[in-house]
Amino acid sequence: MLDNIDNIEVVGLIAASLTTYAFLPQVYKTWKTKDVSGFSLPTFSLFFIGIIFWLVYGIYLESLSMIFANTITLISSFTLLVFIFKYRKR
Amino acid sequence: MLDNIDNIEVVGLIAASLTTYAFLPQVYKTWKTKDVSGFSLPTFSLFFIGIIFWLVYGIYLESLSMIFANTITLISSFTLLVFIFKYRKR
Repeated sequence: MLDNIDNIEVVGLIAASLTTYAFLPQVYKTWKTKDVSGFSLPTFSLFFIGIIFWLVYGIYLESLSMIFANTITLISSFTLLVFIFKYRKR
Repeated sequence: MLDNIDNIEVVGLIAASLTTYAFLPQVYKTWKTKDVSGFSLPTFSLFFIGIIFWLVYGIYLESLSMIFANTITLISSFTLLVFIFKYRKR
């Protein structure tokens, strides 16, 4: 069933799963604690914009792993960005 | 001079520059404030392992952007991981 996905795409999919899944505990923790004092707003803003470019790059390369990972990371990093704006002290 | 880098590699390099540069304000802020209370340790651990897989994937794909980005992100995410271990309250 996985015959048409070559070995390297398996490495890509492991990478994609790890970096995508990685953000979930952070989104959950920030949602629960509302503690965003340690976060850098420039970091999450630049990261979010960067993920858009990675998604475009992945679409051009027709990389299943990159499209999958960057679509979901786009959503989770956007959620974190909203939390940072919402909960930060001015 | 950029003739041998095609257009899509430019998109990849913009992506790489953004997500790589993005971590620097966070590393700086955490270094200065030692405030890691809001960080999720599972997030940064999984992210770090994921970046190793992305680097292997990028090397196989011979993607300059991915090799560049993931090498530097590996270093900055490792640095953040060290900070989280060092400064977290048990």
